[in-house]
Amino acid sequence: IETKLPKVGTTIFSVMSQLALDHQAVNLGQGFPDFEPPQALRDALTRAMAEGRNQYAPGIGTAPLREQIALKTQRLYGRRVDAGTEITVTSGATEALFAAIAATVRAGEEVIVFDPAYDSYEPAIELQRARAVHIPLTLPDFAIDWQRVRDAITPRTRMILVNSPHNPSGAVLSADDLDTLAEITRDTDIVVLSDEVYEHIVYDGARHESVLRHPELAERSIAVSSFGKTYHCTGWKVGYAVAPAALSAEFRKVHQYLTFCTFHPAQTAFAEFLASDPAHYLELPDFYQAKRDRFRALLAPSRLKLLDVPGGYFQLVDYAAIRDEDDVAFSRWLVEQGGVAGIPLTPFYECPPGTRLLRLCFAKSDATMAAAAERLCRL
Amino acid sequence: IETKLPKVGTTIFSVMSQLALDHQAVNLGQGFPDFEPPQALRDALTRAMAEGRNQYAPGIGTAPLREQIALKTQRLYGRRVDAGTEITVTSGATEALFAAIAATVRAGEEVIVFDPAYDSYEPAIELQRARAVHIPLTLPDFAIDWQRVRDAITPRTRMILVNSPHNPSGAVLSADDLDTLAEITRDTDIVVLSDEVYEHIVYDGARHESVLRHPELAERSIAVSSFGKTYHCTGWKVGYAVAPAALSAEFRKVHQYLTFCTFHPAQTAFAEFLASDPAHYLELPDFYQAKRDRFRALLAPSRLKLLDVPGGYFQLVDYAAIRDEDDVAFSRWLVEQGGVAGIPLTPFYECPPGTRLLRLCFAKSDATMAAAAERLCRL
Ligand SMILES: CSCCC(=O)C(=O)O
Ligand SMILES: CSCCC(=O)C(=O)O
Repeated sequence: IETKLPKVGTTIFSVMSQLALDHQAVNLGQGFPDFEPPQALRDALTRAMAEGRNQYAPGIGTAPLREQIALKTQRLYGRRVDAGTEITVTSGATEALFAAIAATVRAGEEVIVFDPAYDSYEPAIELQRARAVHIPLTLPDFAIDWQRVRDAITPRTRMILVNSPHNPSGAVLSADDLDTLAEITRDTDIVVLSDEVYEHIVYDGARHESVLRHPELAERSIAVSSFGKTYHCTGWKVGYAVAPAALSAEFRKVHQYLTFCTFHPAQTAFAEFLASDPAHYLELPDFYQAKRDRFRALLAPSRLKLLDVPGGYFQLVDYAAIRDEDDVAFSRWLVEQGGVAGIPLTPFYECPPGTRLLRLCFAKSDATMAAAAERLCRL
Repeated sequence: IETKLPKVGTTIFSVMSQLALDHQAVNLGQGFPDFEPPQALRDALTRAMAEGRNQYAPGIGTAPLREQIALKTQRLYGRRVDAGTEITVTSGATEALFAAIAATVRAGEEVIVFDPAYDSYEPAIELQRARAVHIPLTLPDFAIDWQRVRDAITPRTRMILVNSPHNPSGAVLSADDLDTLAEITRDTDIVVLSDEVYEHIVYDGARHESVLRHPELAERSIAVSSFGKTYHCTGWKVGYAVAPAALSAEFRKVHQYLTFCTFHPAQTAFAEFLASDPAHYLELPDFYQAKRDRFRALLAPSRLKLLDVPGGYFQLVDYAAIRDEDDVAFSRWLVEQGGVAGIPLTPFYECPPGTRLLRLCFAKSDATMAAAAERLCRL
């Protein structure tokens, strides 16, 4: 069988996690915490099973969970969304991103993505026989050059895909960025797909600028988030998409045939947990900022140069002082010889800029960070 | 936004489940049991959470679960499959079906499906801009007319999609059917997608003829199954696909960007449960045959005509003696006036044949069946 995705191999996250296992390396690659979700959440899931939430959930998500998401959206972003028609629970943010693209982007159309870009965007676009138009973020702070966006727009542009806080860099969009995005897409048919899975993880007192906070932009946006990133349970695979009713209707047409519905007991558990502890995610910035700062302090004696981290839970490090080789080669060397797994940036680029950057996840326990730092400081 | 799926509305299963709720009807519509998965399985899931299986599973599924699936495939169908390269765990059979189609079918190609056909097949095909070629099963026993298949094959035929035991009719393919299918697809590029989610539910001593049992056919087939149907937990959304390594590689390329991986604690729980109780599914035929026979006995006094049920957990009933209207109208009348929700067959057809058949799910407790039968006998 001839492949439909000639450019696609195994995702870098699976590759590096496997290499980390093979070499017993400290795994700072794939983005997941090495600590546990709240006990109350796990208990709620066990209770949900005992209470018989073991058959299909409604395809769009359980009503109590959608209501909690609506409450959160209003509380946090000041936007009233209708839980019945504007929120859809998905099997992780990955499914939401795929469904959003599959539902709205047609063959021959174009999707503007910003490089470095999360690696699932492009294959999803390619499977629609559409074209990803890659615009590099400007270094060193991974900002969007809006003039380049204006120049890239054509009559075929169907979607602009933004991601804030940004993976892998942690860069965050400002309110001005969103204003510009609104202005650029005004009176067009362009849909904004906003990957906001790290929405609760922004640092130094900054505020996450969700497209849902922007009244104009929200009218043409699909905002995607993840309970896995927020509640330390990436393996539970529950995410969601918020979009105006007409867009949600198209989204749901695809979603219902992608997965139909999402693991039911977890939906019940999240609904209960959000209702009883709505402030949990308000603690995330401090929680992760302490980790970020600890990790940076641990790496201070190393020969790695640390880039700024405005959001998310990844630290980009410049390893040029240690080895002069591309990041894919370096990441292999590091996992094999250095005992630490990180993620190279090359797979996030259409045209890799030849930077000497590696992504390290600091959503880790003190012990894991210390073990990794000890190895990294030896380089 | 103009829709990419003009023919698609809300799936009939969601529609009928919602109507059942609204009218407090006995829900024999959407196919799910109203009893619980084994306690040992739920306990294993709780243990898996306590043991920290809360972060991403490997995208292809956990190794222990894939090994159990390989063991089962060998034990039951005599086929050795490689757990590393030929088995992929998915977020339900629905995801597996979508991924199989997205990975192998291209724009302009054709997929042969047999009507009545499960409603997720066609939209998945349409999203590839491929064409579903519908061949009606012959009534009254919902058999495949192989001559029609031969006649339908063109150079553009990329896939034949079979489903045994068949939803909604319960018809099962014979070993002869598989031989014919093998013969027809010999020396072609046609992929067989085999939806076998009811593989363990065949009656009257018959044996399920899996494509995995057929050495030739297995080499060009993707077989899809469902733990939800087998272990009474349709809301857990764990399924899997078995295919030769080259096909699995393409399947995985898509799967990794559809959902990446599946709810981790359930994978650990299924692996443990299959290892400790490998014979559980061997009890399913007797278990469900008793339900089938009880349901039929309860309906004997009614004016419904009961069709034969060779497999699966649905009873087709002919309601022509009760009302002379199409099945969509009848199903609405029945849920509103009769207090029972069933599934009309029209949504499973490209060209509905005007039969007066309704699908009723008998994966139900005695009490539910009795309550439904009481209402149905009143009609
Ligand atoms: C779905 S695996 C990748 C997880 C993640 O978000 C990342 O590591 O960037
Ligand atoms: C995914 S909802 C439909 C469940 C099912 O298999 C059916 O009712 O036919």
